[in-house]
Amino acid sequence: MKLATLRNGTRDGQLVVVSRDLAVATPVPSIAPTMQAALDDWGRVAPLLQEVADHLGEGNATGAVPFDPKLALAPLPRAYHWVDGSAYVNHVELVRRARNADMPPSFWTDPLVYQGGSDDFIPPMGDVAVPSEDYGIDLEGEVAVITDDVPMCTGVAEAGDYIKLLMLVNDWSLRNLIPGELAKGFGFYQSKPATSFSPCAITPDELGPAWQDNKVHLPLVSHINGRPFGQPNAGVDMTFDFAQLIAHVTRTRRLGAGAVIGSGTVSNYDRSSGSSCLAETRALEQIAHGKPVTPFLRFGDRVRIEMFGQDGASLFGAIDQRVVPAMARTGRG
Amino acid sequence: MKLATLRNGTRDGQLVVVSRDLAVATPVPSIAPTMQAALDDWGRVAPLLQEVADHLGEGNATGAVPFDPKLALAPLPRAYHWVDGSAYVNHVELVRRARNADMPPSFWTDPLVYQGGSDDFIPPMGDVAVPSEDYGIDLEGEVAVITDDVPMCTGVAEAGDYIKLLMLVNDWSLRNLIPGELAKGFGFYQSKPATSFSPCAITPDELGPAWQDNKVHLPLVSHINGRPFGQPNAGVDMTFDFAQLIAHVTRTRRLGAGAVIGSGTVSNYDRSSGSSCLAETRALEQIAHGKPVTPFLRFGDRVRIEMFGQDGASLFGAIDQRVVPAMARTGRG
Repeated sequence: MKLATLRNGTRDGQLVVVSRDLAVATPVPSIAPTMQAALDDWGRVAPLLQEVADHLGEGNATGAVPFDPKLALAPLPRAYHWVDGSAYVNHVELVRRARNADMPPSFWTDPLVYQGGSDDFIPPMGDVAVPSEDYGIDLEGEVAVITDDVPMCTGVAEAGDYIKLLMLVNDWSLRNLIPGELAKGFGFYQSKPATSFSPCAITPDELGPAWQDNKVHLPLVSHINGRPFGQPNAGVDMTFDFAQLIAHVTRTRRLGAGAVIGSGTVSNYDRSSGSSCLAETRALEQIAHGKPVTPFLRFGDRVRIEMFGQDGASLFGAIDQRVVPAMARTGRG
Repeated sequence: MKLATLRNGTRDGQLVVVSRDLAVATPVPSIAPTMQAALDDWGRVAPLLQEVADHLGEGNATGAVPFDPKLALAPLPRAYHWVDGSAYVNHVELVRRARNADMPPSFWTDPLVYQGGSDDFIPPMGDVAVPSEDYGIDLEGEVAVITDDVPMCTGVAEAGDYIKLLMLVNDWSLRNLIPGELAKGFGFYQSKPATSFSPCAITPDELGPAWQDNKVHLPLVSHINGRPFGQPNAGVDMTFDFAQLIAHVTRTRRLGAGAVIGSGTVSNYDRSSGSSCLAETRALEQIAHGKPVTPFLRFGDRVRIEMFGQDGASLFGAIDQRVVPAMARTGRG
């Protein structure tokens, strides 16, 4: 099934079940008012939501309305945990090579993750406010999972069972703030502002055979200002699958229901499939020509990120956003 | 006023108003069911809670029950944003000196913060579960603020107005996991497990003149296994006050209501006041004797962190916890 959150004037919006073709949606206030409420009680709630989804699929749901992604908030407009991996290690290696830095061999066996801010996820078609173009505004196209409660010290073999939903991500990055911030040694903070997610969060079964080995085996398609930018396959060259990421992040903690875990920028060794962030494009240019040519994003630029099933249908709906100066940001909710 | 959250079988517990002497508490379900609900609508809710607090103070509240901190969850059992500073820069300098590392001069002018996980805060008297003593288990005694919604690019002059509540923190750290994790460049994750907070979150006016310049001018008193460990003054040697920390963290993002911002380990140049973490004690031993002597914590060890007003009364209640092997952790809620 596909779930989304529509704006209704509250911070957490209203949970809706969306039809497989993304055409219509049904509010489900009597089942769960919000996405977090559904995740808090997933074992009981999911079958009830699935019933609604089944009715929607048969075209006979009561109360269905057209689904307008412009009215959608992030599936979780705010969350209690957002941790982002960097699971496509070829990308890490490439970016380091561009700046003549070696990559420790342990990066192939020990996942790299960072803790993100989760109080303010950006609506899928909302404006993305940044105070200055000088910060080096970049997209990062990713896949993410939402988990149930996950115990501490969960093993890889069991970890996949805790994955309840999937989303697409644009993990906005401010590249020119990164070197200074990482040099301080405590990781990202100012350089990773609010994050964007796809209109729909979907259960793994919606992917059919494309969900396998805890990876999504489909291209992640991104456009910048309407021009194709990349379509690397999220199932290819993913060094750490989502089960391995979950095992890594639960080594010293448990996760609460609704934790969001990202894959990191999707990236393939086959460079003909393009990239999912400008930093990678620029790294390739640096290696090939001695300097980067492609600029970072400017105010007014649009970024669209989407994924399509074998039948060509959009699976999650599109993240389609415009970068704007911070003062022009659209309001909350 | 003082607020707390009592366990009631739900993830977010029940909001109560606590009397100034911490003796009694009143549930306030008709005002706000949970701490987050109160913070989401603070402007409307706070005066109503204050009325209840005033009645409690006069000894004529209806429905008041004895306040038992053993039944308390963290004031916010889970939160949407937890960012921890390292505002006592003398501590950073000292720890670096112990390992013969220079500190960049910018550390005196540019705050250091890390993003923490916030889906699973530990009850103030709950057990602290760690998978292995080999991880180097350490306390970090701190002060934290809880904010209202804070706009992006908030200036230092306005930032203090967004501080609504204060808490004490034990920012548990796994020291032996830190070097490997920081060497990877993305900051803390496994080395900063779930965090503990004091039973009560209190409004700044509860501190009287001790709340000044956006700092808490009182000693933070910690004990390990009943022995005094440290009592550095949180208002002394705090290089960045909470307004400066808020300005720093909103440079590229806004904060949602209920964001928690920590001070970092409280530490004074006057070493006779002791420390708020074992890493500092060990750094001092390293500098004085060439090697650290004090061990990190063992299973069964207890840590108590508290703060007292001029009248000797406990202001927040105590964080008083035992470190246990992960498998023995007490359940949620």
